[in-house]
Amino acid sequence: MRLTFLGTGAAGGVPLWGCDCPVCARARVDASVRRQPNCALLEAGEVRLLLDAGVMDVAERFPPGALDAVLVTHFHADHVQGLFHLRWGNGELDVYCPHDSEGCADLYKSPGPLQFMQLSKFETFELGDVRITAVPLVHSKPTLGYCIEHEGARLAYLSDCSELPPATLEFLQRWQPHTLCLDCTFPPGTEQPRNHFDLTQALALSRDFPDGELVLMHIGHKLDVWLSTRPDALPSGMSVARDGETLVCVGTP
Amino acid sequence: MRLTFLGTGAAGGVPLWGCDCPVCARARVDASVRRQPNCALLEAGEVRLLLDAGVMDVAERFPPGALDAVLVTHFHADHVQGLFHLRWGNGELDVYCPHDSEGCADLYKSPGPLQFMQLSKFETFELGDVRITAVPLVHSKPTLGYCIEHEGARLAYLSDCSELPPATLEFLQRWQPHTLCLDCTFPPGTEQPRNHFDLTQALALSRDFPDGELVLMHIGHKLDVWLSTRPDALPSGMSVARDGETLVCVGTP
Repeated sequence: MRLTFLGTGAAGGVPLWGCDCPVCARARVDASVRRQPNCALLEAGEVRLLLDAGVMDVAERFPPGALDAVLVTHFHADHVQGLFHLRWGNGELDVYCPHDSEGCADLYKSPGPLQFMQLSKFETFELGDVRITAVPLVHSKPTLGYCIEHEGARLAYLSDCSELPPATLEFLQRWQPHTLCLDCTFPPGTEQPRNHFDLTQALALSRDFPDGELVLMHIGHKLDVWLSTRPDALPSGMSVARDGETLVCVGTP
Repeated sequence: MRLTFLGTGAAGGVPLWGCDCPVCARARVDASVRRQPNCALLEAGEVRLLLDAGVMDVAERFPPGALDAVLVTHFHADHVQGLFHLRWGNGELDVYCPHDSEGCADLYKSPGPLQFMQLSKFETFELGDVRITAVPLVHSKPTLGYCIEHEGARLAYLSDCSELPPATLEFLQRWQPHTLCLDCTFPPGTEQPRNHFDLTQALALSRDFPDGELVLMHIGHKLDVWLSTRPDALPSGMSVARDGETLVCVGTP
């Protein structure tokens, strides 16, 4: 099972409009440190899934048939805006998503080829030989994380969240992902981190998954700035994702 | 006064996702016939205005201070989606728009540096030495066209519309724009053209402006296909806009 990050940024991305912090200034001249909206392509055997659709060129990257489905975590624009352009085209595309009566803009009103499939909390379904469980997360809009299993390898994709509901934490403790991709928007010491994890919380959570790889994503520019002067801040088994990076998730025999 | 089209396409753009018509197929290999979301930059003296914000790289093209304001015709995603990314940045940007209680996605809820200024029908205001009148249009969402005057040159930007309300037509007949940019999504013979002009309607309207230049925009792929075999279909004084094209609008002395 391979996961390729198309984007790893918090809302607004890196560089942020009008921001002159060292990281945003560098990102204007060095594409390698830019962060597009958080979004990833999962490939497992013959199955290709897009996890969120915040990058704006979804229509160009994925012609009809290139994806088996999109798994949307929630309906904030930076997680679905790449779907807007597909709606006047031909083809079909299943979009799994949480129950959210609002959706985003007129996605529900004018879905075109998009077929929205609303998932219940802890609902499990299969796409080919990939088994997926939708787990509820705490965020400012109804939000699901996705726990994805293929040939014994287990990957959890948890974006966006400020907290794991107890039942979700219990599920994950039992399920023990080999790879856990987690929203970590803010640096430590953020006063009242709103709607997203900060690094202090991510470090605390990592203790529940001693054998798993924890990959931080949905990164805000302030966390990048904080990390830039602390190259050894992350413990072994924890890393920060980069746009374009591919993870390989292999199960233990 | 100069108007540069950043995009000239109907919703979904050209090429359309999954469409194999001759125009969409060609647009995949020939960037010169692609159409991004309809959107233009107006430059008049020292004033720079963005007319709609459908292109996705507004944040990159226009750092804080590069624009005096954005004039939004309406809140469909393909006219405002470029504003989403600016909202977590620094700076200020005035966004003139119609009264629309819905807006688009969470633009109103999380405006960040955007200051939405709702305009009444036929309201006139000035930005530097540019005089602007907002005129109501008939579309599936509250929509304004913008009549823009600078040093005697008059340019009307009318996107999106299926019809001009009588009072708007009267205003335009009296005002007599030198350049009239008009939504023309569909080819002639479209059965019940919905929410947008077709070429038959555009040709009919042009008779009211015998001395003006009529520039068609918000072009759908079917109109491009229709025109591709009829190079002489448009009368003198009427043209189809292309992405990247610049019009110069000079008033008569």
